[in-house]
Amino acid sequence: MAPVAPRSGDAIFANIERVNAELFTLTYGAIVRQLLTDLEEVEEVNKQLEQMGYNIGIRLIDEFLAKSNVSRCVDFRETADVIAKVGFKMFLGVTASVSNWDAEGTCCSIILEDNPLVDFVELPDTCQGLYYCNMLSGVIRGALEMVSMKTEVTWIRDVLRGDDVKLLKQVPEEYPYKDDECFMLKKIKISKHLFKDT
Amino acid sequence: MAPVAPRSGDAIFANIERVNAELFTLTYGAIVRQLLTDLEEVEEVNKQLEQMGYNIGIRLIDEFLAKSNVSRCVDFRETADVIAKVGFKMFLGVTASVSNWDAEGTCCSIILEDNPLVDFVELPDTCQGLYYCNMLSGVIRGALEMVSMKTEVTWIRDVLRGDDVKLLKQVPEEYPYKDDECFMLKKIKISKHLFKDT
Repeated sequence: MAPVAPRSGDAIFANIERVNAELFTLTYGAIVRQLLTDLEEVEEVNKQLEQMGYNIGIRLIDEFLAKSNVSRCVDFRETADVIAKVGFKMFLGVTASVSNWDAEGTCCSIILEDNPLVDFVELPDTCQGLYYCNMLSGVIRGALEMVSMKTEVTWIRDVLRGDDVKLLKQVPEEYPYKDDECFMLKKIKISKHLFKDT
Repeated sequence: MAPVAPRSGDAIFANIERVNAELFTLTYGAIVRQLLTDLEEVEEVNKQLEQMGYNIGIRLIDEFLAKSNVSRCVDFRETADVIAKVGFKMFLGVTASVSNWDAEGTCCSIILEDNPLVDFVELPDTCQGLYYCNMLSGVIRGALEMVSMKTEVTWIRDVLRGDDVKLLKQVPEEYPYKDDECFMLKKIKISKHLFKDT
């Protein structure tokens, strides 16, 4: 049987069940507001949003693999491209671009030029420090973990915090192959901490 | 200028910004799970979901009126039809039907045959009593209130609770014209209670 070609994000998005983006945006806003009320500390809200995203990502990867025909990526560069070009299109209907690769090819930025989650959103002064879209970082981390790729996904810039674009920074872990590196060990600790609630 | 004809739910949905339904489903599931953890009491979760929906509905009505070209409905029957045929299609991509009208035309059921919110959802025994989709009732109540129509929206049947279809029951209030009726007064109290948090 001939291999099935991967499908473009546009093609998948056109044939997938969808809901109104504004409903999603407002629903997401309701979550953030609820967490801010319940948890009070902005740092805790950031953590909880990431954890919620992680729980979503570990399930969403099935839909992604089933609908995209994407097979195993050859390296982290290809993975980042697939997330930006296929993943974001397939789930949020927007495209993203990848840039700022480090020399080792283990760290890059994903730039979201359009993000339906922040439509109509303006953060009050009391929410400085909030990574409003932190759920997205968790989704990526959870989804990649299901294909055996440990990553750290952090926000570098956020339009709601006064910057002009949003960026995701990804660091692949590749444990246990690189566990002699301090930075990698630090990330394992973070991962373990986040795992405990799942 | 000639009046603009109302657009069908299908036509609006085809031309509106959308996101992946599974992402929305899982995000909604994350809210419910979070509320169950934070509030513990299922009754409190039902209330909070409804209140979240209310807050969403009072904003979503603007999008609805802007995109649908629907003008003022002549009566509650037409309102219910528009919710079922245009509203559900425009926001969730599904259609609903209206039935079980009472003699006065003030109470009906809205039957959702397909509901993306409950895909993959199975409630544990500890969540009996949970109206999982209670956000939807709140959205309808909030949206209608913005067009000066006070309603009570309650779940009659829920597929997650072992029934085969889901129903919304709506009761228009039309306060102050009918405030001599006990039932109507009771509803005004409920509304006031819910307003205090908004």
